[in-house]
Amino acid sequence: MEVKLVSNLLEANDLLARKNRENFRQRGLFVINLMSAPGAGKTTILEKTIRALSGEIRIGVVEGDIVGTRDAERVQRLGVPVVQINTGGACHLDAGMIARALEDLNLEGLEMLIVENVGNLVCPAEFDVGEDAKVMVLSVTEGHDKPGKYPLMFRESRVLLVNKTDLLPFTDFDMAEMEKDVRGINPAMVIFPMAAKRGEGIEPWANWLKDQAHKKRNQGF
Amino acid sequence: MEVKLVSNLLEANDLLARKNRENFRQRGLFVINLMSAPGAGKTTILEKTIRALSGEIRIGVVEGDIVGTRDAERVQRLGVPVVQINTGGACHLDAGMIARALEDLNLEGLEMLIVENVGNLVCPAEFDVGEDAKVMVLSVTEGHDKPGKYPLMFRESRVLLVNKTDLLPFTDFDMAEMEKDVRGINPAMVIFPMAAKRGEGIEPWANWLKDQAHKKRNQGF
Repeated sequence: MEVKLVSNLLEANDLLARKNRENFRQRGLFVINLMSAPGAGKTTILEKTIRALSGEIRIGVVEGDIVGTRDAERVQRLGVPVVQINTGGACHLDAGMIARALEDLNLEGLEMLIVENVGNLVCPAEFDVGEDAKVMVLSVTEGHDKPGKYPLMFRESRVLLVNKTDLLPFTDFDMAEMEKDVRGINPAMVIFPMAAKRGEGIEPWANWLKDQAHKKRNQGF
Repeated sequence: MEVKLVSNLLEANDLLARKNRENFRQRGLFVINLMSAPGAGKTTILEKTIRALSGEIRIGVVEGDIVGTRDAERVQRLGVPVVQINTGGACHLDAGMIARALEDLNLEGLEMLIVENVGNLVCPAEFDVGEDAKVMVLSVTEGHDKPGKYPLMFRESRVLLVNKTDLLPFTDFDMAEMEKDVRGINPAMVIFPMAAKRGEGIEPWANWLKDQAHKKRNQGF
């Protein structure tokens, strides 16, 4: 009975996700769903990415948080259009929340939409919001055992941003071990190491985004 | 309809939690529910706590993870009884899972039970498992903005373990700011800073646990 309901919820979500995806396709808008555990550095990465692509790609942002508007305020300071979703208690964004948020965000002229999900390494991976790519962040301070413990997130994501590499010398994080575990779950995963707060490693990732956005745009016309 | 079901789920959980709590009360067993975001250091803290209380308090452990037995294996090496729960997809432990796990754990002679929840700063706080105290870990690498973003976890927990303080010099974590935000949500919260991997700050926390276990034991008889 319980499982049945979850399945219905996910089916209902997939229906709304398809609508979002069709909306994005028609506009040639490239959309990423940015996920991680709390405090892995999603918002900092977002800030640095927006700066790196400033003047090249017009970006809009949807911020997801349980409560509050801190992250949306940080992003707004960079002059990009942003909408904050407060989920109340819910530990993830779903396609319906994104559809409602887009009523308050003018997509006209935008080339990329970045959805920053609620900080959670479990549930967000289950909910398609209509994105082109799920992107996850793992900070090295969380430990290299995470792929084996949260496999769905690593399986569903196309890109892994390994953040806070400047703290590597002070942890026992084993990059090779982590990559081996990732390859066992998701052989095609694209991995970008970075130290976002210092701005290190942002460029290759920003270039990947730019390429993807251009491809999507060209398909749309 | 959806909210109604969640409410029923939580009501059903509370019923089972009361049964667990009565079981623990009769045994004079002190029980903590240890929660945090992924990678904050719960298992390391658990290992160091077990070592610190070795020969003083007989501890049993319930390990909660989505998949795998890594954490249970780490704990088992210390010679304490441990049961691993795999939640499948579920992002939190509930009272029913604990009740089932206890069928495989001999509580006879134990004085303390430590439940290590799934790494998640959201949902575990909603599910009472019958514990005496919810204890949360925040690692300084997650940032000091977490109380405002995940208030339920900070409100529900009696104790906050601020971990990885050895990394403070390499972050912009503002301890005073974090404490101010915590006090606004949970004025009575007991805070222990620690660098668990180095074993720093474990003693005051272990002493607190010992006091609580003795109190519970004396109430039980």
